[in-house]
Amino acid sequence: MSDTSFTLDARLQNDTKHVASLSLCDVLLMNDARFPWLVLVPRMSGMTEICDLLPGDQAMLWREVTLASEALRSLAPFDKLNLGALGNIVRQLHIHVVGRREGDAAWPGPVWGSGAAMPYEEEQLVSLRQRLHDALSG
Amino acid sequence: MSDTSFTLDARLQNDTKHVASLSLCDVLLMNDARFPWLVLVPRMSGMTEICDLLPGDQAMLWREVTLASEALRSLAPFDKLNLGALGNIVRQLHIHVVGRREGDAAWPGPVWGSGAAMPYEEEQLVSLRQRLHDALSG
Repeated sequence: MSDTSFTLDARLQNDTKHVASLSLCDVLLMNDARFPWLVLVPRMSGMTEICDLLPGDQAMLWREVTLASEALRSLAPFDKLNLGALGNIVRQLHIHVVGRREGDAAWPGPVWGSGAAMPYEEEQLVSLRQRLHDALSG
Repeated sequence: MSDTSFTLDARLQNDTKHVASLSLCDVLLMNDARFPWLVLVPRMSGMTEICDLLPGDQAMLWREVTLASEALRSLAPFDKLNLGALGNIVRQLHIHVVGRREGDAAWPGPVWGSGAAMPYEEEQLVSLRQRLHDALSG
């Protein structure tokens, strides 16, 4: 389960804003207004592959991904949800949960590697973080 | 659970070769020698989002993804596993399990949308399907 020596990867820290801490994962909002995009990071150090988690932690992870998917859908309806665990650049285990709309900035391609992020306005960011936090706690 | 009216999407049928049928999912090998790449398709019709599966089916799906990840690793060691559930083009629910090597044809970007597939030689394909089938059954 959670690991007290855990520290968030510097690149994830830079690209995201913290939304909520669930039992296993921190839920982060990607600071990119082009896509409603959450990133779940299990608070475990030195872990890179989901298949190497203990079965109970895997089950918890996927339950939290579903919770994040439903929270995202309640606030930003999507045409298709995209889930991804890549980690080719940032090796710290993290799972992307991205709401996609037909015709969005990367459609129908993947969001990863699709140009520069467009940061949220500060007011948008405050409001969205609060609403996501509430949806995840609800 | 499995659905007798299920038929595999025509594009997935065209791009892959069947490897094994697990309890919930058919496991397909992407016919692209650039990457060791499995696709898991739950045999359920009309399903597009993992978060809409019943909790028991979600749990089964992720157990089968882990089984596929381990089978892939046993035959084709990777530097990083990439998991993805996108479905922007093919809406039938399917999960990609892709072994990535540093410097491979799409590294460090995602495999989705990264140029044309390079089909396996027939002999390679027969051997790989058999070995994957055995690893998934073992």
